[in-house]
Amino acid sequence: MSDPIEEGLLLAPKFDADGLVTCVATDAKSGELLMVAHMNAEALKRTVESGEAWYFSRSRKALWKKGESSGHTQRVIEMRVDCDQDAVWIKVEQHGPGACHTGRRSCFYRVVPLKQTGAVALQFRDAEKTFDPSAVYDKK
Amino acid sequence: MSDPIEEGLLLAPKFDADGLVTCVATDAKSGELLMVAHMNAEALKRTVESGEAWYFSRSRKALWKKGESSGHTQRVIEMRVDCDQDAVWIKVEQHGPGACHTGRRSCFYRVVPLKQTGAVALQFRDAEKTFDPSAVYDKK
Repeated sequence: MSDPIEEGLLLAPKFDADGLVTCVATDAKSGELLMVAHMNAEALKRTVESGEAWYFSRSRKALWKKGESSGHTQRVIEMRVDCDQDAVWIKVEQHGPGACHTGRRSCFYRVVPLKQTGAVALQFRDAEKTFDPSAVYDKK
Repeated sequence: MSDPIEEGLLLAPKFDADGLVTCVATDAKSGELLMVAHMNAEALKRTVESGEAWYFSRSRKALWKKGESSGHTQRVIEMRVDCDQDAVWIKVEQHGPGACHTGRRSCFYRVVPLKQTGAVALQFRDAEKTFDPSAVYDKK
């Protein structure tokens, strides 16, 4: 007897206690991991219906269209869901110079050295700024 | 003034209310997204110290070494942390035929069709089983 969540054809997202699933966004062409964020039911629905990435900000507790401030929107080329349906993967066409609010292409610009104990010193990698965040985001 | 979490060299993971960060595992060679899981402080520490992937299972509420039941361990080739340090990315050498407990290489074997409204019918993609999970996992 196969599990309908894992082997079925119905999209049945398993939202966590806060009503969220994890979303991983990669660059559809290069495969590069751009960002990890969250979607609530409404963000997921809007993403599926529009083909543009919508997220839910845990810190701001707000639905959020990627690029609504920066103009750096994400067109979704393909969306997948994982076995237990608590994570989605979107392959996106990233518009503009970057996905990260720090001004970089990807949010993952620091390496954690391995085989170490105690306090870990990160190493910057692929960390060039591709845009100036202070020029892109609305000043509040 | 730059934010030490975003621009600093100290690994300072931002664990959520359950004490977890999200972990994305990709194949170090192909770049393929294999799985999304979670790490608590102990899983992160063990992964950094050993170079082997450890996770924390939200459903079982237990620390878990990837491959402890299946033998399908993950050697971590590189680990990165994201801007706000609530997600880590590990590029792994996946041992054995797959990362997914359903018997597949990746957990992301179903596509969510876009530009649709209402109930969504998933489409299987890259969904070949590479091993028989009933033969690999301990029977309880």
